[in-house]
Amino acid sequence: MLFYDCSTAPNPRRARMFIAEKGVEVESRDISIAKGEQLQPAFRAVNSRATIPVLVTDEGTVLTENLGIAAYLEARFPEPPLMGRSADEKGLVLMWNAIAEQQGGAPVADALRNGHPAFKDRAIPGPANHAQIPELAQRGVARVAQFFDLLEERLNESPFIACDHFTLADISTFVFVDFARVIKMRVPEGNTATRAWYEAIKARPSAQI
Amino acid sequence: MLFYDCSTAPNPRRARMFIAEKGVEVESRDISIAKGEQLQPAFRAVNSRATIPVLVTDEGTVLTENLGIAAYLEARFPEPPLMGRSADEKGLVLMWNAIAEQQGGAPVADALRNGHPAFKDRAIPGPANHAQIPELAQRGVARVAQFFDLLEERLNESPFIACDHFTLADISTFVFVDFARVIKMRVPEGNTATRAWYEAIKARPSAQI
Repeated sequence: MLFYDCSTAPNPRRARMFIAEKGVEVESRDISIAKGEQLQPAFRAVNSRATIPVLVTDEGTVLTENLGIAAYLEARFPEPPLMGRSADEKGLVLMWNAIAEQQGGAPVADALRNGHPAFKDRAIPGPANHAQIPELAQRGVARVAQFFDLLEERLNESPFIACDHFTLADISTFVFVDFARVIKMRVPEGNTATRAWYEAIKARPSAQI
Repeated sequence: MLFYDCSTAPNPRRARMFIAEKGVEVESRDISIAKGEQLQPAFRAVNSRATIPVLVTDEGTVLTENLGIAAYLEARFPEPPLMGRSADEKGLVLMWNAIAEQQGGAPVADALRNGHPAFKDRAIPGPANHAQIPELAQRGVARVAQFFDLLEERLNESPFIACDHFTLADISTFVFVDFARVIKMRVPEGNTATRAWYEAIKARPSAQI
């Protein structure tokens, strides 16, 4: 298997953590978004949509998107289960992963890509350029604050995001919460359940790499 | 099982099609987004995040988000498989489903919710109000055109969106393509592979309900 990574971006980090939690050995290549390598012909020949992460399977299948990579690895390497054991758990993991993507990851990306000069005309990942929309950056910041409230409510009723053990939903949520630093947002001090959960995930070996 | 549906909205339709393709009998309740019923206390007691669809399992687990509902049903009712047979297929289904959500569903929603007077201050689903951003509506329209190109390229190399048979990725893509009518966008006449695929999915019994 061949894994195309990017050390500075949140979405490749999610896949990197998932692979590490599975204990799977992969060959890795780093693609520098800072240098625009994802838009160069060499990488576009791997993924024409110019997004990272990418996992090329032993069968040669090119998988992009975190869920594509996770679903493949979960089926091939079932232990430890990261996408739920029972049917109810499997539902809860993908449900909370979707909530984290839509209400955490998307607003952080909206705020960064529409507000930071480094992303001028790159408001959306992929081959096509799109102009920044400053109002969308503001909306992103407001929504991330709401996301932190939602997490605190959830983590007051559950030890992990989706169910009673660590899953893909914790990986996605942790990476988005951590990445919110780029828009200068941190979990509020009073959100004690979230802060305890965050420190616990941060201490895992998969979060160090 | 109890299914909370909404006859006018695309995301509940995705879950409705998935349930129909599985041949599972569920009790349904319609929640009218037009009347704002998703924001009323009666429904907020079911899903505090005020989104539809919702499936309440026989164990009482409350599942929201299409992927939460699909993952549960796929595990409980494996036949017919709608989320892939092999590991590679499972990866491809969730990969293409994610592409359809981000590059098809999200731009259509951006265009509708930021451009139509009926969604004033309701630019994002859920309990919190957010003002419309007209520039985002324009960007949505431009991105849907790019999505149609992407689909045509994909359907020239594959009979279905994810692999060689009908899956969840076809359901999501079909519903978003169909719903693009609300922003007055249709698959271009020259996109013959997409139009043939669209007509084939539209003829399935699950697309009639």
